[in-house]
Amino acid sequence: MWRATVITIFPEMFPGPLGASLAGKAQAKNLWALEPVDLRAFAPDKHRIVDDTPAGGGPGMVMKPDVLARAIDAHACDARPRLLMSPRGLPLTQARVAQLAAGPGIVVVCGRFEGVDERVIAARNLEEVSIGDYVLSGGEPAAIVVIDACVRLIPGVMGKAASSAEESFARSLLEYPQYTRPKAWEGKAIPDVLLSGDHGKVATWRQAEAERLTRLRRPDLWAAHLAGNAAKATKG
Amino acid sequence: MWRATVITIFPEMFPGPLGASLAGKAQAKNLWALEPVDLRAFAPDKHRIVDDTPAGGGPGMVMKPDVLARAIDAHACDARPRLLMSPRGLPLTQARVAQLAAGPGIVVVCGRFEGVDERVIAARNLEEVSIGDYVLSGGEPAAIVVIDACVRLIPGVMGKAASSAEESFARSLLEYPQYTRPKAWEGKAIPDVLLSGDHGKVATWRQAEAERLTRLRRPDLWAAHLAGNAAKATKG
Repeated sequence: MWRATVITIFPEMFPGPLGASLAGKAQAKNLWALEPVDLRAFAPDKHRIVDDTPAGGGPGMVMKPDVLARAIDAHACDARPRLLMSPRGLPLTQARVAQLAAGPGIVVVCGRFEGVDERVIAARNLEEVSIGDYVLSGGEPAAIVVIDACVRLIPGVMGKAASSAEESFARSLLEYPQYTRPKAWEGKAIPDVLLSGDHGKVATWRQAEAERLTRLRRPDLWAAHLAGNAAKATKG
Repeated sequence: MWRATVITIFPEMFPGPLGASLAGKAQAKNLWALEPVDLRAFAPDKHRIVDDTPAGGGPGMVMKPDVLARAIDAHACDARPRLLMSPRGLPLTQARVAQLAAGPGIVVVCGRFEGVDERVIAARNLEEVSIGDYVLSGGEPAAIVVIDACVRLIPGVMGKAASSAEESFARSLLEYPQYTRPKAWEGKAIPDVLLSGDHGKVATWRQAEAERLTRLRRPDLWAAHLAGNAAKATKG
């Protein structure tokens, strides 16, 4: 069974949204398991101290290497990848999510304060992962995002039909616009082509719209898409 | 008071992690308020249907424009920006987070299924926002991320000292490595320079490490950093 162990000073934040909907139902069916670990339980002193001031000075507090290593050694001595949620990490991608979902599970360390002592990151082989270029109060919301993204890919969790969102990232274009009933709403109609019943025309329109939106909103993805097409053309 | 209204078919996912730690304490102090709105309450039929099949065919379901518009009109007829969490949106940045935190609050629509009818996005002026290039089971974990990022910037929520994470994004470099006690741990020492007491040397070392990590891990941020420096040099 796919297992997510989360090392945190706020175990009460879990399962949070992972207890409902798709992830919650899948957990009830034993398709995956969530194990929150209270980091403070591994602090040796009676005050349960897990952080200390940064060497060299500066604001905030740094997570102590000894306490974190003890928690990891007690709960994550297996082959699962160990992620450290951090704005310094490599950006999370759908490709990495798919790899993580295909494995035995993940261990997620939730950073707090000003960061984690660099020595424990190396000594315990923590993979620093960022969910985006913004600053959170801690790694916990980011851990929930990573776990949610993985869980929906575990076999049996979703229906067999791939979502178009997924297809979108696979082909490096954003999703085309969607419409549903009513046919006319506040004086606006669904585009005729989508009601034409002509599957070829629908596909052409959707491809053109996906390209238009990607060019407009995400020049970075558009450039990657063009480079990918060029590479395919060279091989073919 | 800063107010976050969340329109969702899973109101039970809230407050989730926003009920604990920094965000939870700030809510208890009335520094902000969270208002989850159950979208299904705005469905006119007895089955509380909020979605329908996509016009033109394809997998999944699309959120109906009429039901969503009704929920927005009932709970969000004010000047707050209205975000729609969607992998199609513009990527969230710390600069946008700071703008949102400085305003009166936000309305967040959590997308589910294959997306939201395009007409209601335009008609209700929804700003599509993506927290990263991965696919979630729905917009709820993304909504928690946006709200967490905003709440920590509301005046009074954090102490006055800016975090180094924040300074990092402000100057477009990743954070330098951090260390704390013990001085020696598993045979590894804290770098001498950090224990030297020489503030100038510490600052130089940290700047060099931040530049090294950024070049290595985030060529995109590094290019933006160099372009920013070049612009400053031209102006000066």
